[in-house]
Amino acid sequence: MNRIGNLFNFTIWGQSHAPAIGVTIEGLPTGFRPDWDRLSAFLARRAPGKNDLSTSRREADKTEVLSGLNPDGICCGSPMTVLIWNTNTRAGDYDELRRIPRPGHADYTAYIKYGAGRDVPGGGQFSGRLTAPLCVAGGLALQLLAEHGVSIQARAAAIGGETDPEAMRHAVETAKAAGDSVGGIIECICEGVPAGLGDPMFDGMENRLAQVLFGIPAVKGVEFGAGFGAAALRGSENNDPFYYDETDAIRTKTNHAGGILGGITTGMPLVFRVAVKPTPSIGIEQDSVDLKAHTNTKLTVQGRHDPCIVPRAVPVVEAAAACAIYDAGKEAGAWI
Amino acid sequence: MNRIGNLFNFTIWGQSHAPAIGVTIEGLPTGFRPDWDRLSAFLARRAPGKNDLSTSRREADKTEVLSGLNPDGICCGSPMTVLIWNTNTRAGDYDELRRIPRPGHADYTAYIKYGAGRDVPGGGQFSGRLTAPLCVAGGLALQLLAEHGVSIQARAAAIGGETDPEAMRHAVETAKAAGDSVGGIIECICEGVPAGLGDPMFDGMENRLAQVLFGIPAVKGVEFGAGFGAAALRGSENNDPFYYDETDAIRTKTNHAGGILGGITTGMPLVFRVAVKPTPSIGIEQDSVDLKAHTNTKLTVQGRHDPCIVPRAVPVVEAAAACAIYDAGKEAGAWI
Amino acid sequence: MNRIGNLFNFTIWGQSHAPAIGVTIEGLPTGFRPDWDRLSAFLARRAPGKNDLSTSRREADKTEVLSGLNPDGICCGSPMTVLIWNTNTRAGDYDELRRIPRPGHADYTAYIKYGAGRDVPGGGQFSGRLTAPLCVAGGLALQLLAEHGVSIQARAAAIGGETDPEAMRHAVETAKAAGDSVGGIIECICEGVPAGLGDPMFDGMENRLAQVLFGIPAVKGVEFGAGFGAAALRGSENNDPFYYDETDAIRTKTNHAGGILGGITTGMPLVFRVAVKPTPSIGIEQDSVDLKAHTNTKLTVQGRHDPCIVPRAVPVVEAAAACAIYDAGKEAGAWI
Amino acid sequence: MNRIGNLFNFTIWGQSHAPAIGVTIEGLPTGFRPDWDRLSAFLARRAPGKNDLSTSRREADKTEVLSGLNPDGICCGSPMTVLIWNTNTRAGDYDELRRIPRPGHADYTAYIKYGAGRDVPGGGQFSGRLTAPLCVAGGLALQLLAEHGVSIQARAAAIGGETDPEAMRHAVETAKAAGDSVGGIIECICEGVPAGLGDPMFDGMENRLAQVLFGIPAVKGVEFGAGFGAAALRGSENNDPFYYDETDAIRTKTNHAGGILGGITTGMPLVFRVAVKPTPSIGIEQDSVDLKAHTNTKLTVQGRHDPCIVPRAVPVVEAAAACAIYDAGKEAGAWI
Repeated sequence: MNRIGNLFNFTIWGQSHAPAIGVTIEGLPTGFRPDWDRLSAFLARRAPGKNDLSTSRREADKTEVLSGLNPDGICCGSPMTVLIWNTNTRAGDYDELRRIPRPGHADYTAYIKYGAGRDVPGGGQFSGRLTAPLCVAGGLALQLLAEHGVSIQARAAAIGGETDPEAMRHAVETAKAAGDSVGGIIECICEGVPAGLGDPMFDGMENRLAQVLFGIPAVKGVEFGAGFGAAALRGSENNDPFYYDETDAIRTKTNHAGGILGGITTGMPLVFRVAVKPTPSIGIEQDSVDLKAHTNTKLTVQGRHDPCIVPRAVPVVEAAAACAIYDAGKEAGAWI
Repeated sequence: MNRIGNLFNFTIWGQSHAPAIGVTIEGLPTGFRPDWDRLSAFLARRAPGKNDLSTSRREADKTEVLSGLNPDGICCGSPMTVLIWNTNTRAGDYDELRRIPRPGHADYTAYIKYGAGRDVPGGGQFSGRLTAPLCVAGGLALQLLAEHGVSIQARAAAIGGETDPEAMRHAVETAKAAGDSVGGIIECICEGVPAGLGDPMFDGMENRLAQVLFGIPAVKGVEFGAGFGAAALRGSENNDPFYYDETDAIRTKTNHAGGILGGITTGMPLVFRVAVKPTPSIGIEQDSVDLKAHTNTKLTVQGRHDPCIVPRAVPVVEAAAACAIYDAGKEAGAWI
Repeated sequence: MNRIGNLFNFTIWGQSHAPAIGVTIEGLPTGFRPDWDRLSAFLARRAPGKNDLSTSRREADKTEVLSGLNPDGICCGSPMTVLIWNTNTRAGDYDELRRIPRPGHADYTAYIKYGAGRDVPGGGQFSGRLTAPLCVAGGLALQLLAEHGVSIQARAAAIGGETDPEAMRHAVETAKAAGDSVGGIIECICEGVPAGLGDPMFDGMENRLAQVLFGIPAVKGVEFGAGFGAAALRGSENNDPFYYDETDAIRTKTNHAGGILGGITTGMPLVFRVAVKPTPSIGIEQDSVDLKAHTNTKLTVQGRHDPCIVPRAVPVVEAAAACAIYDAGKEAGAWI
Repeated sequence: MNRIGNLFNFTIWGQSHAPAIGVTIEGLPTGFRPDWDRLSAFLARRAPGKNDLSTSRREADKTEVLSGLNPDGICCGSPMTVLIWNTNTRAGDYDELRRIPRPGHADYTAYIKYGAGRDVPGGGQFSGRLTAPLCVAGGLALQLLAEHGVSIQARAAAIGGETDPEAMRHAVETAKAAGDSVGGIIECICEGVPAGLGDPMFDGMENRLAQVLFGIPAVKGVEFGAGFGAAALRGSENNDPFYYDETDAIRTKTNHAGGILGGITTGMPLVFRVAVKPTPSIGIEQDSVDLKAHTNTKLTVQGRHDPCIVPRAVPVVEAAAACAIYDAGKEAGAWI
């Protein structure tokens, strides 16, 4: 359900307008002293309201640690629960949202699955806001990985079909002006990942990463290395030849495998891309249904919304990758 | 590790040249009578040696049921173990294979992870042959799903960059003639999947499907609905408008979501695509390393190999989808 | 680790002197409206300070719900996190406790497992206070079970070797006067449990119950039905003969099986007993070691302590049973 | 369900009269060469037909390894599947057994849970024969533990209420002569278990051991150290004082804790006892019901049966303990 991971695992909880959102983490190593300033800086990359292109909901994503630290601020072996209070809760009139599901949103499937009990305001548990606790878990995993020489860096590789930064920005502005939204592709490169992480078959690094990454709202595709492009290559082009480098380490001349063979890391950079669909909340009138009146109807989503969540999703992708890699490494005994 | 699923789960075991390969399945419903002829026909779609374009290893993939059935051939509530004997085992000289990892294969990562103890012949546990037991589990799940009106159909959507069937075939033949190989894209459409399957966040239908699909060797990408294409669309294009159809059922006019919103099925066809990399075993000389001599070397993979595994992977993709969907439906109480 | 259960599962977190303790629960049914007054009353049975025989730490165990409810106070399908603030934290001088492990406590094993990072004050994560969040999860499960006619009732069956209530009380008072403590046996009877809950082998009702019950600090034994007594019986005495009762329901004339055969409930009352060891914190001088000085030493545990935790553990046992039974029933489809 | 364990885990499958029974094991360390003669000797301790007091079904419990070994007989990192063929299958007339549940057996609960599909002959999946695959997994775990200085020794501590070996034997003979059966208590002592195994709360060593031990048919109670006896002790009697021994190791003067405090091993011998109920199959006429005729009836169980399974259960208890301890140690990094 809302939990993932084995020896390093966490459960994300909360809804957009509940008193709080948060995460409960098991498997942080005893003796680890989290750097909370660094975590705040990481969370700030995800936070809204940074510029004129993102949503106006300005909440600081200020974390509060409820458990897991000893009096000296050191992880004590107990599960760590971290919360972020929701300051903007339970207000407003959600009657329309309850009756008319927004196209492209989880409103309709929430209604199917949870019926009248579902939490409607702000998208409830399906809110993108739930990526903040994922960034808490991932931000801590990133700190732990850094101690072992692993760095994870994601970036917007395309937005609205454009790959040039200026063109990407223009695509967002144009969409915003039209009350519309755009999606994009995020590429993530993980350097320093030791060879040998991941297990064959269903617990390979690709399986583990995909399971976390598809937990980020709006992600509709995940590919590793050459990915879908590999499907058009020949074996002689796609295979990465091995060689001994000057330090007598085995490397590959290319990295179409994205650092993973047979589900297990090769020691080359782990590279993957995720497809992020355009934000479903748009200011343009759309067709929908009225669940109460049982009629077709029109809907114009009110309020201001991110015309593009790709930039804010970049640190979320890093967080997801960090969680999967730290957990796999823990199982492989890589962090001792 | 080699196990996946919750209320319907299975563990795949075996190696290419072990005495047998097989699967142990938990959660088959009591009272279900498997149709073994139908399963054989399904397995035959995956089997090698069907035509001049696939590998010459001809093993019938004949299944033998060891447990799970009562004397009347009905599932009794106990785990079902099904094996396929390996008739072609433990022969040959694998010294070169042990020393020189094949580019694009798991030979190197198996060496890193399992060291001298790894099972080398035929690729050991990383052999594509292990997809046969996956097809056993999936073939049974397909029979169960059919009872509930769910049908799953995959097809090769592209091979070697070509999408026309004749051009696909030509691409394989050309690659084969050159001792090379090609990859492709498999599209899978699941019809009749009830709305409401899957859970939010890490247990959504996308997460579940991706976790099984990346367990198929050579899969390097998974996308749902418009997938990576959605990244270039605007929200107004990508959002699927809801409407009441003539039977008063809620449907969407388009299906860019691939039948999944917020990780939960919408009741529209569940559509996804997987990227299959070109078979790494090719007859062309490649660069590699000699793990024993610690030198760079050349390798020409001996024997005949599939120039393209995409056609044989089509039923495997169906099997994987069936397992994930049947399990999710079981949790959602959809098959009662 | 700190999580248990399948379709109804929860993670307990917190330490004695952390900012808070709490529980994150998955699988509460959508539409369920918890009765918080009833939960408070249940928690009050566990709370300390009720009489002159229990510890003087008086904290109200006041719960605060952070997530999982919709604006109408109804379970919405999202994980529910409930916390209890620790009002009595981070004070005091724990230097002696850090150096000298209390006999019978987890101080020593916490030191072995978590080293210098362990949380010492109040026993950290090993504090009996962590049974409060277990009572939150269990208290909610009890409300759900009650809707389906299941009632769970535990009682102190023996204290300090005495089985008569007056003698039990006397045993506690005598021990208290001596600065000592006593243990006891708690018997729990679960009525209305449907037949068919539990799975064979490792997921039987006995396995499930034992796994939760041994999570209660001080529990050192669990037995079902005739339990250890059955070991001295003959088959002809211990077997429970079946018969059709006046309503044509199958029952057994005796219930030595404690309502469980082959790990699966029979429909007869589910009966078990747990052994609770005497509170290890006593006012009498004991032998121990000084971990810093590496010498043998003497220890007299300071402060007031429960001379007997059995009465306070009674609702905890009920909570544990409720969690296991509700989860097993959910898997068996018993609560639909 | 039929699977247990984390990093070392296994699934037991098969029924009394299916073609085979067996076990699929994940997490055997690569490079380990099982000693199959030693395993056979271990299995022989569990096998029936050793003397005039046990059942006459004489099957050799000959194991056949299907997967998990490389050509040199070394564990290769892949799951190991081991089967035992059932030579005595599918014969006989089970009509009475299908209609009339044996008191004390799982016949009735199997009927409730699995209905008409259940496997009746020989008790199906509830047969004590399924302890043979548990002994395969446990026998291998015992070999691995021995490499790390851990030894596990169980013994019949009581049979039919008697604790003297001669009196125990007499109790069995007397019961047998009467067509009756007796139960008993098995005590198990695990020496050399490192301190620090097990996790707090629900994954403590007591929880883990209990979850496996209650998977052994007929086990109705589990206690650790002083167990139920501790319930009658005072804290000053039950607490085990710490001291530094002559090698400067911390030990306890007594071991009422059975080597476990707070769920974590102390380094002292791990000691537990299980209660085994008398074999339910007896030659004496008993009351039962006819499920088909819906009437009360009498039943006399035909065939020869063990008048006491305690001696045969002794190695099964050792196997169960070995599995739990090896798995916990693997998680704690104790076997590196």
